[in-house]
Formats: sequence, structure tokens, C-alpha cells
Amino acid sequence: MEKLQQRVKEDGVVIDGGILKVDSFLNHQIDPELMYEVGETIYNKYKDEGVTKVLTIEASGIAPAIMAALKFKVPCLFAKKSVPSTLTEEVYHTDIHSYTKNKTSHVVVSKRFLNENDRVVIIDDFLANGEAALGLYNLVQQAGATCVGVGIVVEKSFQSGKQRLLDAGLDVTSLCEIAALDNGKVTLVGEGEL
Amino acid sequence: MEKLQQRVKEDGVVIDGGILKVDSFLNHQIDPELMYEVGETIYNKYKDEGVTKVLTIEASGIAPAIMAALKFKVPCLFAKKSVPSTLTEEVYHTDIHSYTKNKTSHVVVSKRFLNENDRVVIIDDFLANGEAALGLYNLVQQAGATCVGVGIVVEKSFQSGKQRLLDAGLDVTSLCEIAALDNGKVTLVGEGEL
Repeated sequence: MEKLQQRVKEDGVVIDGGILKVDSFLNHQIDPELMYEVGETIYNKYKDEGVTKVLTIEASGIAPAIMAALKFKVPCLFAKKSVPSTLTEEVYHTDIHSYTKNKTSHVVVSKRFLNENDRVVIIDDFLANGEAALGLYNLVQQAGATCVGVGIVVEKSFQSGKQRLLDAGLDVTSLCEIAALDNGKVTLVGEGEL
Repeated sequence: MEKLQQRVKEDGVVIDGGILKVDSFLNHQIDPELMYEVGETIYNKYKDEGVTKVLTIEASGIAPAIMAALKFKVPCLFAKKSVPSTLTEEVYHTDIHSYTKNKTSHVVVSKRFLNENDRVVIIDDFLANGEAALGLYNLVQQAGATCVGVGIVVEKSFQSGKQRLLDAGLDVTSLCEIAALDNGKVTLVGEGEL
């Protein structure tokens, strides 16, 4: 997705420790038209797969996921990092560790919203170690549902996440693949070869 | 908004303590087409106000806010309940208490994304005591920005929030107003008078 890649190059800020800051258009301030195009791109990839649900995790996954769900015309379900008082029934749950936040979250979805007939697209803003996507896939498996694919806005291709998802048998669609974040500079996959 | 009101009546579940559970279409599983219509309705109300930004708070405010932002063609900014490691610069901050969760969150937005030239629509999923909306308005005021209106998906009209926002001089647009949640039943404002 060229517009996204351009935006990551232009507005992404590399900070210490290989962290990419994209909070001007993705995970604090959000560009809604860019997110719409992200949703549309993921929809075009999986539109013939009989998708019944888009699954993501709060909070930064919600914007791309709701746009994809709008195109698929299916509900968007977001896993919660804490159990709200209104969630009084049985849940599927798993633990997801964030290396960026150095924090493990106990993540839940209600059993009412995911079952063995569901064909799920998982969407998240970032793919690094794959913890979040694999945690969401774990929830899909607990429900006996099928994961038809994983849509990622920004993939850090120099980390292990993509390979871990492929090893789990998942189809992965990353819209912007980052080869390196060295010397304060974003290098995209394939960029040196242009 | 008739479709929303119908959905609240049909799918909303009243649980003990006057809490309305709408997690099948609003704050856990989300109906994207309903959210699009919510965004469109808020856009139609404020489209001539020169809006430059839509402001909400994670996580349940994001879906309606991003849809409104898509219509306004302006960025959607969501206040964060914890300070991420990537947020290294100065922030506006305030404390917001949730009575439902019995928890006070220290809420931040980066100073880069809100300034005195901004004309802001605040959007949230629920209005009860008004804590979240007033907290967001506080952030707008700290930035010297203008709040042109507050868009609310579901208002509990039997609680004090709406009046507190009006007392603060804010224009409030609530798309579904609930008069009572008694005996496990949702009664909308004006419903008894039909």
C-alpha cells in the first residue's frame, strides 16, 4: 500500500531501541482516510473467503479493523485487556505480552461473539514479535473458529513475528514491511533494491 | 437516530445497578455500518462549523469517532489512558473517573496534536456522569482550542452528565437518550409520550 508506506517513511519517527513512532496517523492521532484504504486493501485480499467477523485488540487495532469490517459488512470484535463489569458471562481468554510496554495483559472476548462457524480476519496495527496476533489466533482456536488471514498495518520484518505466524499456518497480509530502523532511518523491505 | 434507538431497545441488556450492556454492537462487538451512520449523523450536525479534529478516548470511543472523522476528512485523536513509551514529548493531561469501572485514569494527549487553532468535536460512546466528556473538554481548553460540540452515542438522561456539559457551555448531540433502566427494561426519552 504505497500511500501508507510513504506516510511511514515521511512521518514515522525512529526512537531508541528500534521503536517506530507513528502516532501522527496510526495509534494516537489517526488518519481516517488512510485507515479506510487499509480496510479496503485487507477486504480486497480476503473478500472471497466468506469472512464473518473481524477480530482485533484494543485500542490501536480498532480503527483499521472497523474500516475492514465496514467493507466486509460483518461485525468487528475487539478483545479487551481488562474484564469490564458488564461482561458477566463466559469468556475466552489468553495472556498477551507487549515488549514495547513491558507488560502482560489478560485478554478476553465473550463466548457469545465467537463460535465454530466463524471465519475470522485478525487485524492489528503492528506486527513485531507476533504476541498479539498469536494471542488473538489462540482465542479463535478456543472458539473452534477458522482464521482466514491476518491483516497487519505495519510489520517489523526484522523481528520474528511474521515467521511465527507463518509457522502457525496463518496467511499474513502486511501493508507496510519495515526491513530496518537503523541510525534513526526507516528502511522498507525491497527499498534498497529499487 | 432511529436505527440506533431500535438497536438499543432490542439488543441492550439492563444489568444490576442501572448499567446498560450494549456490547453486541457498541463496545465489544461493534456494528460498523451502525457506527458509520453515527459518524454521518454527527457530521451532519457540525459540518458547517469548520471542524479540524475529532477527539475521543480509548477504547470504545474510537469506532464512532473514526467514522465521524472520515466524514469530516479531519484527523481523529484519541486520548490515552496510559502514557506509552513512544510518547516522549509534552502532553496535556487530566484525570477521568469511571463510576462503572470504579477507576480513575490519568489521561493524556500529545501537545503536538491539539492547539489553539483547532475546532474540535468530542465524541464518546456513553454519557452518564459526564466525567469522560468533561475530561476531554478540559484537554481542549488546556490547548486553547475550541469545542464546537459533543457527540454522544448513548446518553443516560437520568444521570447528571448532560446538564453538566450544558452548564459548561457545550453543545451536546446525543443520538439515543435513555430515560430509565428500571425493572430490566430500557425506556427511551419521549417513548411514553408516543
